[in-house]
Amino acid sequence: MIYFTVGPTQLYPKLRVFINQAIREEIMSKSHRGEWFQKLFSDLTESLRLLLTIPKSHHIFFVSSGTECMERVIENTVVKNSFHFVNGAFSKRFYKTAKELGKSPEQIEVPLGQSFDFQKVEIPKNTETICLTHNETSTGVMLPLQQIYSIKKKQPDKLVAVDVVSSIPYVDIDYRKVDLVFFSVQKGFGLPSGFGVLIVSPQAFEKSQFLLKKGFSTGSYHSFSELSKYEARNQTPETPNVLDMFLLYHVVTDMHKQGIKKIRKAVEKRASMIENFIEKSERYSYLVKDSADRSKTIHVVKDINDNKNLIKFLNLKQIVVSSGYGELKNSHIRISCFPAHTDRQVELLISALKRYSSN
Amino acid sequence: MIYFTVGPTQLYPKLRVFINQAIREEIMSKSHRGEWFQKLFSDLTESLRLLLTIPKSHHIFFVSSGTECMERVIENTVVKNSFHFVNGAFSKRFYKTAKELGKSPEQIEVPLGQSFDFQKVEIPKNTETICLTHNETSTGVMLPLQQIYSIKKKQPDKLVAVDVVSSIPYVDIDYRKVDLVFFSVQKGFGLPSGFGVLIVSPQAFEKSQFLLKKGFSTGSYHSFSELSKYEARNQTPETPNVLDMFLLYHVVTDMHKQGIKKIRKAVEKRASMIENFIEKSERYSYLVKDSADRSKTIHVVKDINDNKNLIKFLNLKQIVVSSGYGELKNSHIRISCFPAHTDRQVELLISALKRYSSN
Repeated sequence: MIYFTVGPTQLYPKLRVFINQAIREEIMSKSHRGEWFQKLFSDLTESLRLLLTIPKSHHIFFVSSGTECMERVIENTVVKNSFHFVNGAFSKRFYKTAKELGKSPEQIEVPLGQSFDFQKVEIPKNTETICLTHNETSTGVMLPLQQIYSIKKKQPDKLVAVDVVSSIPYVDIDYRKVDLVFFSVQKGFGLPSGFGVLIVSPQAFEKSQFLLKKGFSTGSYHSFSELSKYEARNQTPETPNVLDMFLLYHVVTDMHKQGIKKIRKAVEKRASMIENFIEKSERYSYLVKDSADRSKTIHVVKDINDNKNLIKFLNLKQIVVSSGYGELKNSHIRISCFPAHTDRQVELLISALKRYSSN
Repeated sequence: MIYFTVGPTQLYPKLRVFINQAIREEIMSKSHRGEWFQKLFSDLTESLRLLLTIPKSHHIFFVSSGTECMERVIENTVVKNSFHFVNGAFSKRFYKTAKELGKSPEQIEVPLGQSFDFQKVEIPKNTETICLTHNETSTGVMLPLQQIYSIKKKQPDKLVAVDVVSSIPYVDIDYRKVDLVFFSVQKGFGLPSGFGVLIVSPQAFEKSQFLLKKGFSTGSYHSFSELSKYEARNQTPETPNVLDMFLLYHVVTDMHKQGIKKIRKAVEKRASMIENFIEKSERYSYLVKDSADRSKTIHVVKDINDNKNLIKFLNLKQIVVSSGYGELKNSHIRISCFPAHTDRQVELLISALKRYSSN
């Protein structure tokens, strides 16, 4: 099957090779306190810095999911006031996380499929951390990086946290212009799920140290403080998902060899193939009306009918897409466009969508 | 290599078969919100209940590590007062977790390699949750289950939490006689790391609901409340380590087919082989002097010399053991005895240890 699901999704093409290597090298039995692991940790960190241009000043913390990252961001940087740009289920989850952790989050919320009028958003003065979802996996809206950067520029004393779960590594984010960036690996990296990465600026790390000094709890084994103590010796506080770390290292290294610019251009090309087809079609339409707001990696598309038969038809053609999220479950499909996909696969998808519309 | 490391360790013998099956069935691409996953979740839960005799009344929550379980236990069952039986690094980590989360934990601490004089331990009246490490992976002390049960029996209003990370599935625990039991999968189940299981009694679950009602935070996506909402529809709040769930299901099912009694007897037999050899040896000695306190699954052994050459010698014989933990790092080795090991492998280990002592 070809998986155009939004994550878990199509595996990175060489993943089987890397899994076999993992078995051959017995990495699943090796100690997470030994030299072998320390080298893997350091290699992975270095390869991520290289591929994504992460400054040396920034911490790279390894956790277990993107959802965990939301919790750790709030625990470590917010005493009371976070502010959330909410435009779908995942930005809502970020807001809810702050609420559940006993904070007093505020939000600006827009209807599904829309972006924000950034000039008009008023961020309360007492806000500590501003939370944005760069690429809403539930609606297929991608926020413009320049707008995110300018939020930080206008109020440099506040922290800016950006969820890039479904846009990385396509998104070319400047880590010096925001404070907290996080993702999981089962989307744009084409890996098995169960691993998350959280990149933390010196300013955000300082905030967590300030909270600790003031006697606030910042969590236990995954507080920034504990994570950084272990990071300094190339280890993690707990026994982590070592297999995913090994696989991520190999995928990131392979991407770097191919060239990240080339990979990003290829994603854009395939996204255009999908977009051109949908826009010309009389049967299918985008949830996101303004093409400037449309994600390159997540395409949320409506069939004129209920999606049930369409999904069935695609499955018969060996193609799997995601259904819509939440209230869009039966009306929309979601199509991912990640580095692991090929032009040929996207051609097959488009030709299947065409054939279905001529039925 | 044969891994007698304390975890990650020797993989379950059929693990390669199960990994290949996972690749063939494309489980790493499948949606964690689809029917396939719901069936896996339900199959895994059922197989765990069957193998470990977990009552239907008890929740089974899936998280990312044993260390995470400690955090979730404290967050969900303790307003202020936990009490900790501390006899090594992992029970200390449990105590530290409560401290870091802003609680006021108390402890009884004994020297490395010793167990507790249970009759003499005074547990403060205001204690909410009593925390014990059934099998201290750092020292090789295993606590008697009857003593743990009687703590609960004497004070049924308090919760009892038991870390069985390195004794399960050897330990035959009666889940009705304690409240919270947790483990990770890279030890006795012989799986890749990055997954944890937390079993919660109705009384412990009720406590978490009580905390919520009183306005305390019990965490966010992995609060008992969120975990149970998703458990009810055979899902997890976040995208979990699906591969480990799949592998755990197959290992647990395979163990059930073999018979858990037989597996436990086989572990005991191999533990006796190791113990008989060490006790007769003039060169090696146990850290745990009282054989009644000795773990069957983790053997912490001292060579008359520094352990460096011994570890090197064993490596040349294709055998890997763990070094001692913390201050025992250079003096002791730790040998695991898990279901994944075979009699033949233990014979090879003993014969290598013999040969080294005759050098």
